Amino acid sequence: ASVLQPHQPSADIRPPASMMGCITDFFTYETTKSVVVKSWTIGVINRVVQLLIITYFIGSVWVFLHEKAYQVRDTAIESSVMTKVKGFGVYNGRVMDVADYVTPTQGASVFCIITKLITTENQVQGFCPEVRPWSRHKQVFLVQSKEMRGSSRSSPHVPGVMTGKCVSFNSTLNTCEIRGWCPTCLSPCVCVCPSVENFTIFIKNSIRFPLFNFTKSVGNFLPTITSSYIKKCNFDPVNNTYCPIFRVGDVIRFAHQNFSTLAHKGGVIGIKIGWVCDLDKSEDSCNPSYSFTRLDAVSEKNNVSPGYNFRYAKYYMMENGTEYRTLLKAYAIRFDVLVNGNVSFP
Amino acid sequence: ASVLQPHQPSADIRPPASMMGCITDFFTYETTKSVVVKSWTIGVINRVVQLLIITYFIGSVWVFLHEKAYQVRDTAIESSVMTKVKGFGVYNGRVMDVADYVTPTQGASVFCIITKLITTENQVQGFCPEVRPWSRHKQVFLVQSKEMRGSSRSSPHVPGVMTGKCVSFNSTLNTCEIRGWCPTCLSPCVCVCPSVENFTIFIKNSIRFPLFNFTKSVGNFLPTITSSYIKKCNFDPVNNTYCPIFRVGDVIRFAHQNFSTLAHKGGVIGIKIGWVCDLDKSEDSCNPSYSFTRLDAVSEKNNVSPGYNFRYAKYYMMENGTEYRTLLKAYAIRFDVLVNGNVSFP
Amino acid sequence: ASVLQPHQPSADIRPPASMMGCITDFFTYETTKSVVVKSWTIGVINRVVQLLIITYFIGSVWVFLHEKAYQVRDTAIESSVMTKVKGFGVYNGRVMDVADYVTPTQGASVFCIITKLITTENQVQGFCPEVRPWSRHKQVFLVQSKEMRGSSRSSPHVPGVMTGKCVSFNSTLNTCEIRGWCPTCLSPCVCVCPSVENFTIFIKNSIRFPLFNFTKSVGNFLPTITSSYIKKCNFDPVNNTYCPIFRVGDVIRFAHQNFSTLAHKGGVIGIKIGWVCDLDKSEDSCNPSYSFTRLDAVSEKNNVSPGYNFRYAKYYMMENGTEYRTLLKAYAIRFDVLVNGNVSFP
Repeated sequence: ASVLQPHQPSADIRPPASMMGCITDFFTYETTKSVVVKSWTIGVINRVVQLLIITYFIGSVWVFLHEKAYQVRDTAIESSVMTKVKGFGVYNGRVMDVADYVTPTQGASVFCIITKLITTENQVQGFCPEVRPWSRHKQVFLVQSKEMRGSSRSSPHVPGVMTGKCVSFNSTLNTCEIRGWCPTCLSPCVCVCPSVENFTIFIKNSIRFPLFNFTKSVGNFLPTITSSYIKKCNFDPVNNTYCPIFRVGDVIRFAHQNFSTLAHKGGVIGIKIGWVCDLDKSEDSCNPSYSFTRLDAVSEKNNVSPGYNFRYAKYYMMENGTEYRTLLKAYAIRFDVLVNGNVSFP
Repeated sequence: ASVLQPHQPSADIRPPASMMGCITDFFTYETTKSVVVKSWTIGVINRVVQLLIITYFIGSVWVFLHEKAYQVRDTAIESSVMTKVKGFGVYNGRVMDVADYVTPTQGASVFCIITKLITTENQVQGFCPEVRPWSRHKQVFLVQSKEMRGSSRSSPHVPGVMTGKCVSFNSTLNTCEIRGWCPTCLSPCVCVCPSVENFTIFIKNSIRFPLFNFTKSVGNFLPTITSSYIKKCNFDPVNNTYCPIFRVGDVIRFAHQNFSTLAHKGGVIGIKIGWVCDLDKSEDSCNPSYSFTRLDAVSEKNNVSPGYNFRYAKYYMMENGTEYRTLLKAYAIRFDVLVNGNVSFP
Repeated sequence: ASVLQPHQPSADIRPPASMMGCITDFFTYETTKSVVVKSWTIGVINRVVQLLIITYFIGSVWVFLHEKAYQVRDTAIESSVMTKVKGFGVYNGRVMDVADYVTPTQGASVFCIITKLITTENQVQGFCPEVRPWSRHKQVFLVQSKEMRGSSRSSPHVPGVMTGKCVSFNSTLNTCEIRGWCPTCLSPCVCVCPSVENFTIFIKNSIRFPLFNFTKSVGNFLPTITSSYIKKCNFDPVNNTYCPIFRVGDVIRFAHQNFSTLAHKGGVIGIKIGWVCDLDKSEDSCNPSYSFTRLDAVSEKNNVSPGYNFRYAKYYMMENGTEYRTLLKAYAIRFDVLVNGNVSFP
């Protein structure tokens, strides 16, 4: 009967030995009495349920280990990018260097290499007939008929404020008069630079994972890289996966683009640097991987204008104090260096 | 007695049939013998404890499902923003176009539209009396009395290095002499542009969630959008929630700001694009949502200078080789396109 | 015997009282019959296993509480940075202000303060002997011997396209002829600015945690900060931890760099703003912490060129319409304001 009252046996032991009894009692093994039900139906159900439970646990553990769920993971990354472009281009008989075709010049993560320039020189403020060599709609070059003539509303395609008058552009052509920088386009000089393909982009990238305060200063330079290697190497995804110098033509090819169409229309190319780091391993195994993609490519479902261009001006002053400018429409390949990270610890 | 020794029965079965016996034994259901204690106190406690446990489990499962805790979620987003401003403004009798008032010109995620310009023309290096039309402290325009006169220390408000001399600015006014770009301010021309309100901002945004390698190239253009729609539409949060063209005046209104005060003082407006995507659903349901806010607004507790302005210069050269410049203080509306994402999978 | 059949007793109770009987039955406590095995070996194993289980649970709970695992944590942050540099520098007899030495001028999160300028004035397009005062390899200043002479290939170190001819630079020196902006370097004027150390950087930082829609507009201005304090204060990590104005010299010192070497070679300094916020607490406890580091420092293992510089040009036009330029190689201290966040809720 005592086995049914587990806490009673200690009382059976004689008081002088009660200490010893307590310890003896403590180190006993108490298990439940069981009944075995010999039924196939209940037995099969019992084992199936047990199997499900075991499967669930093994599955959980597998997911836990496979997903490294015991690790703290974070995707926030602090990144600083320094870039430098090198190379010379000949545009329309002029030799141009980085100061001419790279903008902004500071070498940050977003920069443009100008591949085509349309210039309108010697513009001054005034009144002139409107000509639009940049328009996609060739018919509007010509006489602004009915709806525009006499209208002083400005359209975003018109390079100035319309006066509402109609003036003669040449002996055969009348066009709307505008007020603004004139002439609107006297002799557009289109210059394309074929040598951009051979330019090189040099990238330094310092990163930090703030959650773990793990820093890699100029981390895309492997410790094994020597300065003589950097002087000669060009990135390629097979043999020079860690060379920080990228030929423009290669980058465009890696992004599956055609250089000459890109140079004419302009475009935005992403140079993506991925840092997948497991801080459990050695610091030297936390290395960048580069990939390349076009960022302004719209899906083919809607044929919205692709390409990338921007306008800027160079300002000059005459001796008499009148300001004039050269307006430039630059078609450029913009490079966005995008850095992403995924760090796990421990 | 055998029911108390659950693992013994298998030995009772005859050896020839031991295989069958094993299987029979395996598919048995073993349960524990139990004692029912008929006590209200213990019974109530028992049920309350069971209720708590069940509540806890139901709560856990509810939280798990409600928070979609079974999904992998990530907020890291890789984003590239392309912007383009269109419109013409008339400042002080001059017609200005994007090349004049948008800076930087490259159309990245941060750009400024200049709304007010204070220019000081024809500055050359030299010595001149100090005048400060930009100072918030009007009294310091005038004679720099006691503490400044005779001091060669430069204050951050003084537009040059003080020589320590006191010179006459005009017949009635003496002021400190400075060395630097002179004159400090001969005829400041303040020009405000009221037409900025009608300018339009065109935004292309390509995103990628690196953790899932999920890309939306120019994803803020819905596949259903046609190029004729884009030519005409203007974003509004009710009818045109996916139009990528924003009227400046609308953006400022959506950010609950007043255009004319913003144009005079300058300010920073955030155009926020949020991508909340559940990759479990169709790709087409992963769409941007736009919101607008002012970013340089300090809480009213401390009235620290609001507004946004910056100085830049245009450099010219005389025939004799002397460099001179036009200094411009630009009050601008800076737009920061800020992209955030929240992706869940599966 | 009834104690072995727990669900049977309800049947014993008389029908009229069956409701009461159900409740009575419900509030009973059913426990298992147990067997106590008095074996030291099994007893010790039993208790050790129990101890392990208890330890595991206590450990789990401790980890849960210590890591605040019950909180939702996110590291995605939306940030807008506004900066403004103040100060005057004297470079080579010229007084320069922010419009001259800060670039880009818009006051975004990345900006450069030019500390050294090498200028080549009055360049026009043409042919001229090559001189490279900027080369790290002094020997190539001189005659381009064997491998270069007669080659029309361009090297990235040559400031133009080589014509393949060899021309005399002066009476004693022959050098390669290039085509491009000429002269390549007639009288380089090296100007270093020692006063940059005293310049101040003013930073406004607005943040938002998109997951919780928690915004701090210009959050690095504490509500307790007065405008008179901001006019006078300078950040230091002991007494003025929340002053948003940073002396350049201090920032460089906090990043453990030497100002004069940095000013000569250029460099990239990170001003990191960390927002570690527990939204469980008051909003006022969510404050920034500043830290400073050099971002272009390569580890000492590979002595790859440190420093930071970029080239840009100022363009001028002669009365006869010929464009000429001043080429500037700027050594600068670039400041990257990097913002990271870590928010937990509730």
